[in-house]
Amino acid sequence: MTQPVPMVEIWRGDLLESQHLGHAVVCDASGKVVEAWGDDEKVIYPRSSCKMLQALPLIESGAADAYGLTSEHLALACASHQGAAIHTDRVQLWLDGLGLSVDDFRCGPQKPSDKDAHEALVRAGKQPCQIHNNCSGKHSGFLTLNKHLGAGSEYIEVDHPVQRASREAFEEMTGETAEYYGIDGCSAPNFSTSVAGLARAMAKMAKPDGTGARAQASKRLVEAMCAHPDLVAGEGGACTELMRAMGGKVAIKTGAEAVYVAILPEQGLGMALKIVDGGTRAAEAAIAGLLVKYGVLDANHPAARKYLHGPILSRRGLNTGHMRLSEGFVQV
Amino acid sequence: MTQPVPMVEIWRGDLLESQHLGHAVVCDASGKVVEAWGDDEKVIYPRSSCKMLQALPLIESGAADAYGLTSEHLALACASHQGAAIHTDRVQLWLDGLGLSVDDFRCGPQKPSDKDAHEALVRAGKQPCQIHNNCSGKHSGFLTLNKHLGAGSEYIEVDHPVQRASREAFEEMTGETAEYYGIDGCSAPNFSTSVAGLARAMAKMAKPDGTGARAQASKRLVEAMCAHPDLVAGEGGACTELMRAMGGKVAIKTGAEAVYVAILPEQGLGMALKIVDGGTRAAEAAIAGLLVKYGVLDANHPAARKYLHGPILSRRGLNTGHMRLSEGFVQV
Repeated sequence: MTQPVPMVEIWRGDLLESQHLGHAVVCDASGKVVEAWGDDEKVIYPRSSCKMLQALPLIESGAADAYGLTSEHLALACASHQGAAIHTDRVQLWLDGLGLSVDDFRCGPQKPSDKDAHEALVRAGKQPCQIHNNCSGKHSGFLTLNKHLGAGSEYIEVDHPVQRASREAFEEMTGETAEYYGIDGCSAPNFSTSVAGLARAMAKMAKPDGTGARAQASKRLVEAMCAHPDLVAGEGGACTELMRAMGGKVAIKTGAEAVYVAILPEQGLGMALKIVDGGTRAAEAAIAGLLVKYGVLDANHPAARKYLHGPILSRRGLNTGHMRLSEGFVQV
Repeated sequence: MTQPVPMVEIWRGDLLESQHLGHAVVCDASGKVVEAWGDDEKVIYPRSSCKMLQALPLIESGAADAYGLTSEHLALACASHQGAAIHTDRVQLWLDGLGLSVDDFRCGPQKPSDKDAHEALVRAGKQPCQIHNNCSGKHSGFLTLNKHLGAGSEYIEVDHPVQRASREAFEEMTGETAEYYGIDGCSAPNFSTSVAGLARAMAKMAKPDGTGARAQASKRLVEAMCAHPDLVAGEGGACTELMRAMGGKVAIKTGAEAVYVAILPEQGLGMALKIVDGGTRAAEAAIAGLLVKYGVLDANHPAARKYLHGPILSRRGLNTGHMRLSEGFVQV
């Protein structure tokens, strides 16, 4: 088993203070590994990075069209959103359109990471609810598929038709049988894959094979993510800022415990990486580095600089340190 | 150079999802390394874990007694507090007693991590200020020493008498010349040491040599931390919960980027550890493991179980995974 490689360094003054190791893979649409660091066969949970795969059955089943979902809905289905008004207002309308309510969600409540939304709740004396959960768009997609299928209310159970469809699409796209599954933070099952399998799935999203239902669904989801970077995360979020910096030509997505994926339609490439320790700052820096290397992100764009280098500021705004990619990984 | 060792594992379902590596050292008061994992000579910034060393000149100079500081003040000087009312009210009174104001701080503003304090600010339409900075107790100590010395207002500059005194005490206690310094999040300098040097300093705090000013100051600071675990961090904080679980017999302190130290007076031992990737959850688990191994923390105490094992819950409260210490590190 190949060991993980140093990927991201945190410097303070002249001392390397902290360091992150990881695995990363770039695949083409034939499934061929174009480039890899660490162990491309390392088995991981993709967590939220695979929401676009989980959303494939929503379209392929006909549910998305039956309920008139737009590209905004599809972007939200792929999102880990910040619970800002632009997210929760749309999710509420989506639920209304389904004739369902927040109580039909099974994702659990979460404090919005959007500052304004959180402060508005506090001022109103209200508690965060399930609509603020960063996965409420994904769960709206699950509920839409579930209504279309006419299945039972516990749509997050691993043997429920919604999750069986999700697993099937996931395994077809990764080209692997999921060896493990875990319960995600939103209580839905999350299936395992190798890092190469995840990159392969992203390459297939980037350059779908043929013109069938899978190809069309893949294309619609990637286009939705690229068209609505603000819905996929939110203001100040890495997915949003980096997708904007790439002018809507590349879809990227973060997952908990430091997973990141990228879908490059023009290049027909998919990327996936996992930082071993789960440190999100390193996953953001590493994916930014890969995107620069493959020519889709300008290393001098302010968003690229922010996620690649920092700076790391004190609470008075003094420059105390910076990040950089480790030798042996991508050099930008 | 010895490599860092696996210390803490994050499991979800039956898959090892993330892993943290680190360095750890246990020293006795003679400076002898009793036990070590990874590289005991690894040079690190102790960050906030060394606040009790930075507070030594406050007492040794006579400033603490000249301004009537109690053990509560001393505990706050060693604290990374959560900005709760029990912290900020005391810091405000301390400033009042010095005839100074929040504007004399140079630590910068910080959102209180205490939920109630943060929500009270939001409801009042107020912004967090410097008093909410987790280091405002340390900076009150700096201001007290500074007033006693009659030095200039920029007490956080590295060549200011307050920081020169802090560096001198730090180097005497670690037994090392600091090779590097960095600017901490609170804009004060933070000096480097090896992990062994930091553990050595903690052992000297645990079992001071002789009855001189250093010994007395060390004893007062350790007693203050042990007497006021709620002031050292706050409700729900690892330092507070684990110190309470040990019945006030051991002082422990966290530092940013996953440093942790422990002072064991009855055993005459000091501990220090650094998780390479800066992951705080792992530093908390690792110090809890060391404290269990050395017989001062009951592995079955709820606080010990929380920091050693989790559980890791979904947002609906489902048990999704757990933490455990890696093979080759402490087994509890």
